[in-house]
Amino acid sequence: MKLKVAVLGATGMVGQKFVQLLADHPWFKITTLMASERRVGKRYREEVNWIVSSDVPECARDIEMAPMDPKHCDADIVFSALPSDVARDVEPKFAGEGFVVASNASAFRMEEDVPLVIPEVNPDHLKLIEVQRRKRGWDGFIVTNPNCTTIMLVLTLKPLMELGLRRVTVATMQALSGAGYPGVPSLAITDNVIPFIKGEEEKVESEPLKLLGKFDGEKVVPAGIKVSASCHRVPVIDGHLEAIWAEFDRSVEVEDVVRAFESLKPLKDLPTSPEKVIIVRNEADRPQPRLDRDAGNGMSVVVGRLKKVEDNVIRYLALGHNTVRGAAGASILNAELMVKEGYI
Amino acid sequence: MKLKVAVLGATGMVGQKFVQLLADHPWFKITTLMASERRVGKRYREEVNWIVSSDVPECARDIEMAPMDPKHCDADIVFSALPSDVARDVEPKFAGEGFVVASNASAFRMEEDVPLVIPEVNPDHLKLIEVQRRKRGWDGFIVTNPNCTTIMLVLTLKPLMELGLRRVTVATMQALSGAGYPGVPSLAITDNVIPFIKGEEEKVESEPLKLLGKFDGEKVVPAGIKVSASCHRVPVIDGHLEAIWAEFDRSVEVEDVVRAFESLKPLKDLPTSPEKVIIVRNEADRPQPRLDRDAGNGMSVVVGRLKKVEDNVIRYLALGHNTVRGAAGASILNAELMVKEGYI
Amino acid sequence: MKLKVAVLGATGMVGQKFVQLLADHPWFKITTLMASERRVGKRYREEVNWIVSSDVPECARDIEMAPMDPKHCDADIVFSALPSDVARDVEPKFAGEGFVVASNASAFRMEEDVPLVIPEVNPDHLKLIEVQRRKRGWDGFIVTNPNCTTIMLVLTLKPLMELGLRRVTVATMQALSGAGYPGVPSLAITDNVIPFIKGEEEKVESEPLKLLGKFDGEKVVPAGIKVSASCHRVPVIDGHLEAIWAEFDRSVEVEDVVRAFESLKPLKDLPTSPEKVIIVRNEADRPQPRLDRDAGNGMSVVVGRLKKVEDNVIRYLALGHNTVRGAAGASILNAELMVKEGYI
Amino acid sequence: MKLKVAVLGATGMVGQKFVQLLADHPWFKITTLMASERRVGKRYREEVNWIVSSDVPECARDIEMAPMDPKHCDADIVFSALPSDVARDVEPKFAGEGFVVASNASAFRMEEDVPLVIPEVNPDHLKLIEVQRRKRGWDGFIVTNPNCTTIMLVLTLKPLMELGLRRVTVATMQALSGAGYPGVPSLAITDNVIPFIKGEEEKVESEPLKLLGKFDGEKVVPAGIKVSASCHRVPVIDGHLEAIWAEFDRSVEVEDVVRAFESLKPLKDLPTSPEKVIIVRNEADRPQPRLDRDAGNGMSVVVGRLKKVEDNVIRYLALGHNTVRGAAGASILNAELMVKEGYI
Repeated sequence: MKLKVAVLGATGMVGQKFVQLLADHPWFKITTLMASERRVGKRYREEVNWIVSSDVPECARDIEMAPMDPKHCDADIVFSALPSDVARDVEPKFAGEGFVVASNASAFRMEEDVPLVIPEVNPDHLKLIEVQRRKRGWDGFIVTNPNCTTIMLVLTLKPLMELGLRRVTVATMQALSGAGYPGVPSLAITDNVIPFIKGEEEKVESEPLKLLGKFDGEKVVPAGIKVSASCHRVPVIDGHLEAIWAEFDRSVEVEDVVRAFESLKPLKDLPTSPEKVIIVRNEADRPQPRLDRDAGNGMSVVVGRLKKVEDNVIRYLALGHNTVRGAAGASILNAELMVKEGYI
Repeated sequence: MKLKVAVLGATGMVGQKFVQLLADHPWFKITTLMASERRVGKRYREEVNWIVSSDVPECARDIEMAPMDPKHCDADIVFSALPSDVARDVEPKFAGEGFVVASNASAFRMEEDVPLVIPEVNPDHLKLIEVQRRKRGWDGFIVTNPNCTTIMLVLTLKPLMELGLRRVTVATMQALSGAGYPGVPSLAITDNVIPFIKGEEEKVESEPLKLLGKFDGEKVVPAGIKVSASCHRVPVIDGHLEAIWAEFDRSVEVEDVVRAFESLKPLKDLPTSPEKVIIVRNEADRPQPRLDRDAGNGMSVVVGRLKKVEDNVIRYLALGHNTVRGAAGASILNAELMVKEGYI
Repeated sequence: MKLKVAVLGATGMVGQKFVQLLADHPWFKITTLMASERRVGKRYREEVNWIVSSDVPECARDIEMAPMDPKHCDADIVFSALPSDVARDVEPKFAGEGFVVASNASAFRMEEDVPLVIPEVNPDHLKLIEVQRRKRGWDGFIVTNPNCTTIMLVLTLKPLMELGLRRVTVATMQALSGAGYPGVPSLAITDNVIPFIKGEEEKVESEPLKLLGKFDGEKVVPAGIKVSASCHRVPVIDGHLEAIWAEFDRSVEVEDVVRAFESLKPLKDLPTSPEKVIIVRNEADRPQPRLDRDAGNGMSVVVGRLKKVEDNVIRYLALGHNTVRGAAGASILNAELMVKEGYI
Repeated sequence: MKLKVAVLGATGMVGQKFVQLLADHPWFKITTLMASERRVGKRYREEVNWIVSSDVPECARDIEMAPMDPKHCDADIVFSALPSDVARDVEPKFAGEGFVVASNASAFRMEEDVPLVIPEVNPDHLKLIEVQRRKRGWDGFIVTNPNCTTIMLVLTLKPLMELGLRRVTVATMQALSGAGYPGVPSLAITDNVIPFIKGEEEKVESEPLKLLGKFDGEKVVPAGIKVSASCHRVPVIDGHLEAIWAEFDRSVEVEDVVRAFESLKPLKDLPTSPEKVIIVRNEADRPQPRLDRDAGNGMSVVVGRLKKVEDNVIRYLALGHNTVRGAAGASILNAELMVKEGYI
């Protein structure tokens, strides 16, 4: 017996990725696809400009688009691929009506009583659910996953915390799919790099502190590290690449960092969890977006080019699939964790 | 009366750029084009796979390729676009026979008695020429320009030295033309980033120290700063983009840095010198390779996105045309400076 | 004394190209830039997302945007870069008020009394101006240039007419700039070809018949040829490439076709006219968009790869700059012709 | 019990694709990987610059590279991914020693006694095997598949033969992987189209006649059609797109053509055979390389944009995966057919 799931914002780039990843999910079954008013009543395949693979999955093709209204939602879990401004209005309505909302939107990520979770990093932050329901008087609740760039970064930072991580400098080379569809005009990015992504650096500099923070029973006490980010868009379809300088409060060797990366264990028994969370590659020229983005079905983070830069600074590269591990896959893994932990 | 100039390695990517930039030069006139043995005796237009513009310039089309031998060189200045390993053998022969060699090759850049010069940064390092001739007993001499990535970086670091610059972290997004021709396979870089350029990080981490060092009458005392670089190839034809974190030994404001950038004055009366050495742009999304690489005819460096990251750290982006300011144009500007200073 | 010119739709892709080409024009001087209501009153540089070069030309930067209303237009010639549906409403108002409208829009191209002109192909069609003014009672008039793809094609077909041209099959590989800005999403075209351009094939199949037709004193009698087109968008910034099969009513040799191409003479004394209208290249791999689009300052058509396929069929490739020779440059050349012929 | 197979030229682009497709093949098992002398004795994963996916398949990683010598080949079938000039020498040695050579090389395709086969098109041409063995006195034999561009084309032409096909005009937009690795330099193809592929047009114009010809018991009598091709390289990783004009000796409707396409049945019980050989799409903008190249696991041909151009001319587009259906997959499907038909 599969759980029934719905997708909010099902026709956008991330919405499509949700539909694609959920199509053959062993625990979940898509029952409701919701989009803006003008699409309501039409079939999904007629409304979506499907660009993530050859064809809309069979199970979603003929679903009639529903309005973004809890009354029309027949599901146990609602995945949200909404833009942040829409999410701010819509998601609370669903949570208020008793739905579990697993959201990729940024709207509520930094709210004090909303869990911002990466299962391998801070599963215990789900305890904020209790706080949230109590404070807001909701039957349901909202759980969020971080920004795509943050996720790859923090998956690699988590195991470095115990080595005395103190300061992080990161330069990103981000994929086009991160901007949604139509997103970046081809005339803007062909033979070019656009060194600006609205709001991105702010997210990458703030979200890690919450993710790596400690839940004290009532709220999350932010981690005492500092992150500085410079974000750039490059002509790559999928896969965010990040050059990271990690500064520690003590001397650190490359081997320590490799050992820490490999110590980050995958969550058992979650279908979307990859075999290896972090894959360390030793080639001089890896990770590369096109070659490595699909590692672990897009759920692994691939790192490489580790180098000791100063006695207490290690430079390395990290890469992950921004619409899988960085968006739809992140929400789905959160939902799987919640099922396993009994929140659903 | 124009000075006669020759190009070593005239058919490669940088060699073509030399020919293009010298074609209409007000002081210089191409008389000799030299290449490897198998090309000797053939006309330039027949041997070159010309890819920098529609057609080989008229003045070079019918020049008969000469061997890389001082005896066959009828010129006052020899520009070298040779690969480093070839340069190591060939350039000394020309310098030994009395030629002025203005070299883009890396072979001799870090030799203690060889000037590594950016005219706006360290013109006084040309005084090493005397040391070099004395030590080597040469009639001529070799003057080098830095690696392309180094040049853009150091042009922006120079004015920051007096603000107490101490540590530099730089992540680069470098153009395809930097790898020469055929260079990077399209199958390797399409929909991809290659996070590795052989030898590049080492150059970017060492050359700035010499460039920003002080000539003490006999040698250059390296500057006391530290540079860490992560170099990446992106699918862009021309133009290297660099994300730079500059750390100072004191508190620094963005305005201080802007003022410093604008204080770097162009060299007067040199034909290849741009009107502005550093152009500061205020738009949120500049500099961009395709839009800004031709600023100042490819000889300006365009900076933007300045941000105070910590009390003593400023982040900014810099961009320059890698085969103009970063290679052929750099050598030509060095030659112009040497003419003006009476070395030629 | 330069003539005053205005641009309708000045902020779009073709509008920007008009501004760029007119900035240093020896006969014309931009006085009015017109755009949609929301831009009116603001300065051009603040409203335009300038993407055709590093910076908005000095002469246009501070022009205050005017509404698309003849009363606010201080100009002798109005260049129109409007989308077709807007052009249909706006252009007649200007023509009615006595303005000369040189339009790149498709709205009126196929109207019986509107000249559709390529100066080197059918300059005598300007005589339709008289018919147009008479029939419509306008003080001014509208003269149009063809679709970008049509222009390159017809420039090569014109000299083939006297060899007995009968049937044309053409497959195009068209540049991104032809779709305007934002135009084609990068996610749609990266690592891809889009084999469809709305309305394009219809234009390419109909416009040549009018252009190659004969003016009989009152109207144009279409040429008796047949054109079939298949149009495709490729990841190229500028430059439309066309593979053309020309079928004749008699046996034809490659040399006949080359001779015909070279017989097409440029118009004397028009500043935008290139030295050579058609450049025949003999290399096996030319023309190429990036290398050849700027030939003749973007006003030449470059052909190559001529081959006799059947006794009466010649295959060749043609390439031209779609926003110069194919759009803004085409309108400007038409205006220059009208000045020379005394229509302005 | 799987059949043992070897790959000649295993490290190149097509060689890698053979290894990838054979890694999980239900009938075949890789036992020998052969390459040029300098690679012999080293492990496959050390010698291959693997670029077709994240990692070399487990089953091939540690295979020691063997020389291209029948004595070192322990296999029932030898797949050849050799360049044509090498294939000419090497393949006969294997056939002479009793091996079945399924070759993607062009060396022997047009030899009178060598089958050039697409299983769905001309399976009966395998009868040439008898002729070949008799004439050459070989224990083994060579069977070839056509050029990648030819395959997609001929799969669509086959069902049109009975509608009276007479003349074919085809313009191609071909992927980078078709040129092998390193293949096309990124500096040559970025923001560009290269309108020339050496030898390609000749193959596309000649191979279809043999494929569509009739085996008369001794040799193949070529089909009486005429093909004219113009071949162009575009910046696409995989997937050849072709614009095709099919001219018939009678009036033909679009529906006739669609019906003919859908009548081409897949071969039953061959593991590499797709569910549908030709997929007809009705969207205005399909087929597209990135979206459609993986249809049928890369073994289907996707057609679209059918249009009646003249009474007896239909224009349509066809797309297929050039290194799967167009190369490695083609050879493997041929081998499967030979197994089923008892030739192996």
